[in-house]
Amino acid sequence: MLKDFEKSTPEDKSKLNDQIKALRAHLVAQQQRIREGKLPILVLIEGWSAAGKGSLIKELISEMDPRFYSVVSPAIQPESEARYPFLYPFAKAIPENGQVVFLDSGWMESAVRKKLRLEITQDEYKRRIRMINEFERQLRDGGYLVLKIFLHIGKQEQHQRLESLTSNPDTDWRVTKDDLWQHQEYAQFMKAYGDFMDKTQEAVPWQVLDGQRGKTAVRDALKLLVNKTDKALEKGRYIGEPFEEKFPLLSMPKLKDVDLSPCIPEEDYKKELKKLQARLADLHNKIYRKKIPVILCYEGWDAAGKGGNIRRVAYPLDPRGVDVHPIASPEPHELNRQYLWRFWTRLPRSGHICIFDRTWYGRVMVERLEGFCTEKDWQRAYNEINEFERQLTDWGAVLLKFWIHIDSDTQLARFTDRQNTPEKQWKITDEDWRNREKWPQYEVAVDEMIQKTSTKNAPWYIIESNDKKYARLKTLKIIIKALEKACDESFARQF
Amino acid sequence: MLKDFEKSTPEDKSKLNDQIKALRAHLVAQQQRIREGKLPILVLIEGWSAAGKGSLIKELISEMDPRFYSVVSPAIQPESEARYPFLYPFAKAIPENGQVVFLDSGWMESAVRKKLRLEITQDEYKRRIRMINEFERQLRDGGYLVLKIFLHIGKQEQHQRLESLTSNPDTDWRVTKDDLWQHQEYAQFMKAYGDFMDKTQEAVPWQVLDGQRGKTAVRDALKLLVNKTDKALEKGRYIGEPFEEKFPLLSMPKLKDVDLSPCIPEEDYKKELKKLQARLADLHNKIYRKKIPVILCYEGWDAAGKGGNIRRVAYPLDPRGVDVHPIASPEPHELNRQYLWRFWTRLPRSGHICIFDRTWYGRVMVERLEGFCTEKDWQRAYNEINEFERQLTDWGAVLLKFWIHIDSDTQLARFTDRQNTPEKQWKITDEDWRNREKWPQYEVAVDEMIQKTSTKNAPWYIIESNDKKYARLKTLKIIIKALEKACDESFARQF
Repeated sequence: MLKDFEKSTPEDKSKLNDQIKALRAHLVAQQQRIREGKLPILVLIEGWSAAGKGSLIKELISEMDPRFYSVVSPAIQPESEARYPFLYPFAKAIPENGQVVFLDSGWMESAVRKKLRLEITQDEYKRRIRMINEFERQLRDGGYLVLKIFLHIGKQEQHQRLESLTSNPDTDWRVTKDDLWQHQEYAQFMKAYGDFMDKTQEAVPWQVLDGQRGKTAVRDALKLLVNKTDKALEKGRYIGEPFEEKFPLLSMPKLKDVDLSPCIPEEDYKKELKKLQARLADLHNKIYRKKIPVILCYEGWDAAGKGGNIRRVAYPLDPRGVDVHPIASPEPHELNRQYLWRFWTRLPRSGHICIFDRTWYGRVMVERLEGFCTEKDWQRAYNEINEFERQLTDWGAVLLKFWIHIDSDTQLARFTDRQNTPEKQWKITDEDWRNREKWPQYEVAVDEMIQKTSTKNAPWYIIESNDKKYARLKTLKIIIKALEKACDESFARQF
Repeated sequence: MLKDFEKSTPEDKSKLNDQIKALRAHLVAQQQRIREGKLPILVLIEGWSAAGKGSLIKELISEMDPRFYSVVSPAIQPESEARYPFLYPFAKAIPENGQVVFLDSGWMESAVRKKLRLEITQDEYKRRIRMINEFERQLRDGGYLVLKIFLHIGKQEQHQRLESLTSNPDTDWRVTKDDLWQHQEYAQFMKAYGDFMDKTQEAVPWQVLDGQRGKTAVRDALKLLVNKTDKALEKGRYIGEPFEEKFPLLSMPKLKDVDLSPCIPEEDYKKELKKLQARLADLHNKIYRKKIPVILCYEGWDAAGKGGNIRRVAYPLDPRGVDVHPIASPEPHELNRQYLWRFWTRLPRSGHICIFDRTWYGRVMVERLEGFCTEKDWQRAYNEINEFERQLTDWGAVLLKFWIHIDSDTQLARFTDRQNTPEKQWKITDEDWRNREKWPQYEVAVDEMIQKTSTKNAPWYIIESNDKKYARLKTLKIIIKALEKACDESFARQF
């Protein structure tokens, strides 16, 4: 969709200025409505080096109140982000409800430049295109207004601008080797940007603006922002429809058909536990060296024994390389963003292990049953979660999901024990009893969840936990097997 | 205080195991009381390479519920943190109320190793010692329980451990060049650690534990943690006393004595504004290149014109190098930490500018007047803030503080105008009117604040803003002058 640049005729300057003034006033008046309407707006600005991305953003925000927007430049984020999935810095940067985030270069460069530099394979490039489309669609479906602008200039214009920057000692540093390389390979880049844009229009269309006429670009960008915002505010936050995507799913049993009788004698347990923990400690060294990220997800009935299970897994690990994230109800700043945001921001660095004590599956369990989201939201979530998890395993993560399972009688016995034991009383609340009453509804939701999200790359494991010791050993064995497989298969990763 | 290691006689193993078991049970029972008592606990573990810091932490947390603690390893934080003040990663890591944070190596190494490597001067080393004492005292005075453990092993023991690690291909990577260097220079390090410990006992004493006897160290660390926690819970959260520290203060006028008549004609304003903004844009390039961090603080009466002033300053700046932080009431996760935490975490990288729209001075204004903190808290805050700001300017930051000043009649006129203009109505709330009634109390608090915190390194500037245009130009001129001075004085910083 990107064409050779044709010089447009300059517009009447004073008319342009008037238009910009009027649009800015409109934007300022909109700010409060954006907040009240809880509309999150993400404006991605991409474009050629020296096309004036920074200046454009400057002009867009010049009259805005800093309480309503922020500018994020992921390009200057620390190198270490190379140890995270490539969408990580952008996922981290998404706005809160009622806020505008201007993103100065984003996921386009992480695909295009890396491809041209041969830092990623063609396959990886294609995967990134897919992930970007998923990411944009998920934001849109979650009620985000996403705008994507490409600031276009011709080769000759770029030449002049780079020359002018490099000839001034105070601005020379702004021109990087990468910029000069882009200029030399202008034609190549043109083709690559065009290809990228063609392939990433599924959820959010691109807008190409004329970077050679700065004021015209400002006017057009303001117009786009102001009009799209008006539309979004008028019709209320968009909520995406659920849709079918055919993930290859594993066949899983219903919870009621799971045999919960497995157990293990005390002395066997102790011996076995020690052996497995020692093995896991070894593997931790290996995955650290090979820079494999590991994500362990725990869900399960209250009092099923998640906590004790997690402790047995975490104990042999070097505490510097493992994080346990207990997931409680979201804080306000988390609630005000897309529901996966608080998990994106907690992902492990490559080579590290993280354990989620409760996970993003809250969306299709508690949020579904308590009405914290709409039916469309949780219906859509199965697919969104499958996509999210595929992004993680494509990144190279080992992702294991455990449903720690007990029957209702066992839960009652454990609740009663907690209630009657003073030092355990804090572990049992009225809410636990209320949730227990909803066991049948939860069972329906959990069954559906396990059916719909047991993908080959991120399977669910149902862990029989009427005997907690048996459950711990089974979990450890699954983790060990998965890590052994990953260590055997993988070369050491660069990051 | 660190002595050559004398081999201690081993203790009876089964007795030790029983003690550890009992202490762990005690710790588990304490967890809920720590949460209820809202006690934040920071446990710093330092020590020789291969002394077993990681294993010690592992043993301390092994029975704890992950909801109550986390382990932070600042040593493996991204390199980019070199672009922040040296205490930044530790300040970021402080626990929330009711949480325990185990810090695996911390500020000790940032002083000692850097000194021995000649990466910092003797003067900088002394400054760091001072900052560490300030930091620890501020935490303690703010109700934190801080524990500092040094895990000690002899040179011979270290030799064996390093050898055993390097001879196994799976653990070889754990030994860095730095570790080997430390081993070679064991005697030097011994002296340096001892010196450091002697000088950092002011607020929180060091505990040296026997790293050669792992179980003994675990028992002793547990005992320390459990006993200190019991004591802290028993007497309630400690609140530090205000104290005198002689910061060289500038002489400042009282607000009532400030002449608010200065103003500027419209056409002069426009011309001057453009000129000053152009100059500021130039300087932004320079400070970026020289990696000078810039922190601009705005406080002032409601409707004094802070927002418009900030916009005029931010407009000429490259949005990629500037952040405006509007400071509203703290979110729960902010309220649950020492009050400076939410500012520490918002500091600019070196070479960047950040603008605080309201600041940490909320402590001695709104928090003081609304009773959000105790009298001792805000009395202590003048010194704490002076120390904090000195840490920032010692780091190399340009720190300017503006009090945007108007008189009461002007505020009334602007409030009334906002009330009567539909598109401005959102800017005026009942709270603004309530605050206005407290003008006299605020004036007392602001006068006291300006008197007590106008230090030479971080002065207050009172900006006459009855005429907003005059105020904007004056602010711009002050900023320009300060940046020019900083650019002239400073060599390019390494980070």
